[in-house]
Amino acid sequence: MLRLAHKKIRHVALQDKVVSAQEAASWIKDGMLLGMSGFTRAGDAKVVPLALVEKAKVENFQVDVYTGASLGPEVDQQMAEAGVIRKRAPYQGDPAIRRLINSGEVLYTDAHVSHNAELIRQGIVGPIDFAIIEATAITEDGLLIPTTSVGNSPIIMQMANEIIIELNVSHPDSLEGIHDIYIPDVQGKRSPIPLNSAGERIGTVGIPLDISKVRGIVLSEKTDAPSTIVQPDEETAKMAEHLLNFLHDEVKAGRLTKTLAPIQSGVGSVANAVLNGFLESEFEDLEIYSEVLQDAVFELIDAGKVKSASGTSITLSQERGEQVYSQLENYRDCLILRPQEISNHPEIIRRLGLISVNTALEIDIYGNVNSTHVSGSKMMNGIGGSGDFARNARLGIFVTKSYAKGGNISSIVPMVSHVDHTEHDVDVIVTEFGVADLRGLAPKERVPLLINNCAHPDYRPQLWAYYNAAVEKTGNHHTPHLLEEALSWHVHLEKAKTMKK
Amino acid sequence: MLRLAHKKIRHVALQDKVVSAQEAASWIKDGMLLGMSGFTRAGDAKVVPLALVEKAKVENFQVDVYTGASLGPEVDQQMAEAGVIRKRAPYQGDPAIRRLINSGEVLYTDAHVSHNAELIRQGIVGPIDFAIIEATAITEDGLLIPTTSVGNSPIIMQMANEIIIELNVSHPDSLEGIHDIYIPDVQGKRSPIPLNSAGERIGTVGIPLDISKVRGIVLSEKTDAPSTIVQPDEETAKMAEHLLNFLHDEVKAGRLTKTLAPIQSGVGSVANAVLNGFLESEFEDLEIYSEVLQDAVFELIDAGKVKSASGTSITLSQERGEQVYSQLENYRDCLILRPQEISNHPEIIRRLGLISVNTALEIDIYGNVNSTHVSGSKMMNGIGGSGDFARNARLGIFVTKSYAKGGNISSIVPMVSHVDHTEHDVDVIVTEFGVADLRGLAPKERVPLLINNCAHPDYRPQLWAYYNAAVEKTGNHHTPHLLEEALSWHVHLEKAKTMKK
Repeated sequence: MLRLAHKKIRHVALQDKVVSAQEAASWIKDGMLLGMSGFTRAGDAKVVPLALVEKAKVENFQVDVYTGASLGPEVDQQMAEAGVIRKRAPYQGDPAIRRLINSGEVLYTDAHVSHNAELIRQGIVGPIDFAIIEATAITEDGLLIPTTSVGNSPIIMQMANEIIIELNVSHPDSLEGIHDIYIPDVQGKRSPIPLNSAGERIGTVGIPLDISKVRGIVLSEKTDAPSTIVQPDEETAKMAEHLLNFLHDEVKAGRLTKTLAPIQSGVGSVANAVLNGFLESEFEDLEIYSEVLQDAVFELIDAGKVKSASGTSITLSQERGEQVYSQLENYRDCLILRPQEISNHPEIIRRLGLISVNTALEIDIYGNVNSTHVSGSKMMNGIGGSGDFARNARLGIFVTKSYAKGGNISSIVPMVSHVDHTEHDVDVIVTEFGVADLRGLAPKERVPLLINNCAHPDYRPQLWAYYNAAVEKTGNHHTPHLLEEALSWHVHLEKAKTMKK
Repeated sequence: MLRLAHKKIRHVALQDKVVSAQEAASWIKDGMLLGMSGFTRAGDAKVVPLALVEKAKVENFQVDVYTGASLGPEVDQQMAEAGVIRKRAPYQGDPAIRRLINSGEVLYTDAHVSHNAELIRQGIVGPIDFAIIEATAITEDGLLIPTTSVGNSPIIMQMANEIIIELNVSHPDSLEGIHDIYIPDVQGKRSPIPLNSAGERIGTVGIPLDISKVRGIVLSEKTDAPSTIVQPDEETAKMAEHLLNFLHDEVKAGRLTKTLAPIQSGVGSVANAVLNGFLESEFEDLEIYSEVLQDAVFELIDAGKVKSASGTSITLSQERGEQVYSQLENYRDCLILRPQEISNHPEIIRRLGLISVNTALEIDIYGNVNSTHVSGSKMMNGIGGSGDFARNARLGIFVTKSYAKGGNISSIVPMVSHVDHTEHDVDVIVTEFGVADLRGLAPKERVPLLINNCAHPDYRPQLWAYYNAAVEKTGNHHTPHLLEEALSWHVHLEKAKTMKK
């Protein structure tokens, strides 16, 4: 492994920096803030975290962990369960750390993906004691080549006091050239981001590395944890069909062409399944300008539907991952990985006019969306990039099945128990029953679309009963609500295990 | 007036287009969509609306009215009360139309100020039958020179089928040259907006006018309705002091310099009063990059504190207005009025790194902000630009007095009854009691800052009681809430006329 590593560490001054994971872990002290690479289980450091888990067996210490997004089990399960993490930001998705966040043992800050870098740049998040960054190579002129994600690594490396590189020899050399690293200057001294189409390159192939900050290089051959997405089913196929029909009508109305507009598709099984539906569609020469490139993106590439795919991470199932990374040269020309502040930047999202598809947990009759909290209190994963996209996209679309827990939870409720996307930011809702196109509508005009087109039929009478009572008792206010009853469905769910009354 | 008007209609082909307001009103038919100039009672058409009110006495008709923002009493009071308005968007602020919105007689769509133009451009709002636009002149080469606001007029004129110009001869000629009209291309064909500092000019001095669409020119000498802001008081002075101390500390921390960053200040008395506080501050050479330029901006200019002030409208009190417009040449060099999609564009707000100060109606213990709805149902004015700014600014600051209605309403509540700005978008809260700096914090870390620094002391024990019970009963979830009680303060207010329990 060391010989292979030396081939990948092409900057000679760094070749004698290789240390063991244990030694690197010994530098990490109680109270430190670690900035780590990784985005949705891709491109994360894996062996230093495991050494920290070992260290925790003999030493009491806690650190704050700031990353791109969710990491694999080495951090978000094992480090978390070892009690090493005091505070975690800005996204997570592992059941282990979720449990600890919801029992008060780990603090968690849930932030828009595009905003993290500004907080780090300003030092609000910081000082970062160590950056721990996975790399596939270090070039002769000192560029760190990331692996399967870019995430927040550029700004973390820029602001960290010291850097530990996890050089992962298991990634194919052909990863080099896929990344496009553009780092904005501080606010006020910044120029426009010169990106005018999804497939353009505007930066360097790697992240500029301040050699003097590199404390050590740890070798690794651990692969990314595979994604846990589940396959499309009958209901997600229905949702895809509704979405495609909606887009078809947008083309007919002259607002889009058959190549549509750059597409963003959220993290998770439902968004992946819906994107999958484009395989059988009339649309072609598609551009993807997204955050995470999941399985469906590669299926669309294989089918010749996609001319370029830009994201900040590649997160694939076990099987897809093996296929893609063994044939990476087939995909290289159309793949671009960017820093998450560029993949999710409002400037670019608005300029390109994205079609954005994200998943909702629940939606209320006026179009407010909850993406993060179960019954108001319990965190699921986090808002991720959904807010970056929905707020700034040409079309902010949210998809969800109309029900959960075998029908005991309605995804359409009188009032959501937490708001991540306000009525002002939600354009279109799609469930397996149909589409609610909310654009330009007043709250009361949205109600019939959401109840009649999107809610599960079992819940429609209950939803109408709430709305009609609210109209009557408020005297038909702008957004009629009965505050005594607005959250009663959630309360009933807790007591009776169903929202059915 | 006609002779003066002919001097101002410098495009010869238009000089015979002058018609009476009655004739212009006769062109407006039931069911039409009118796109009108005007933003916060500035630069709105006034005589055609009054002719429409007259017409309504003898003819049944209703129209939809889409503007920049709130208009003066001719539309938002008299047209509304005459029953002429079916639907109103995207902002309003007159008690008359507010009452009709909350009794179900007028539909209202409340939208982000920066987003309107995209909806019009795509035809989601449209087709616009008539644009009715106030102008101070029409140049030889066919530019319409707006008056005291730009708002959505450029995109409305571009997309409308026909245009009625209200040529207002009461405005000083020196208004010409203040405007900077830059109109983005359609999404996907758009370049970066080439604006790198608040005081730059990137467009033309007027709005390109398609002469063939001009149906008529109506003459007017009606002045803008003055703003209704109230003067600073002891509590707003306290809030200003807290905000200035906070900014002082930001300078000390090296995150800002004494010239700060471009400042946006929201519409209304409280935000105006807080901005007023900068008069006595250490900060200088300030730049204003805002939406509405209110009285305080001109006081800061008079005091030599401001080097440039950019907005989309100028809305002044009676006295200030008379002074400013009689001495406009003194202010001209530092004033710029832009289309609202540029003044509020996320691309620019993020690039410049604005300091944004907006008013909240209520804030919950986790930092979610309600700017629009009283007790969840009743619309006040609308979200305006507060979301554009708070989401994208360097510092998204919300100010509010800690109480309302003589102490019977607490501005800090367990759960807000409507969310306009989510916990992800709110950086700093200021009340007369102090500052809560929420940046980078987890929900539970925000609670003590909001309760102990910002809430009125009368309500602190009640807030702690709610939070502690929520922590205990949920088992310390990420965002502990008791859904049975979360909105009980508002319910109690309705029954007992106080939130005090």
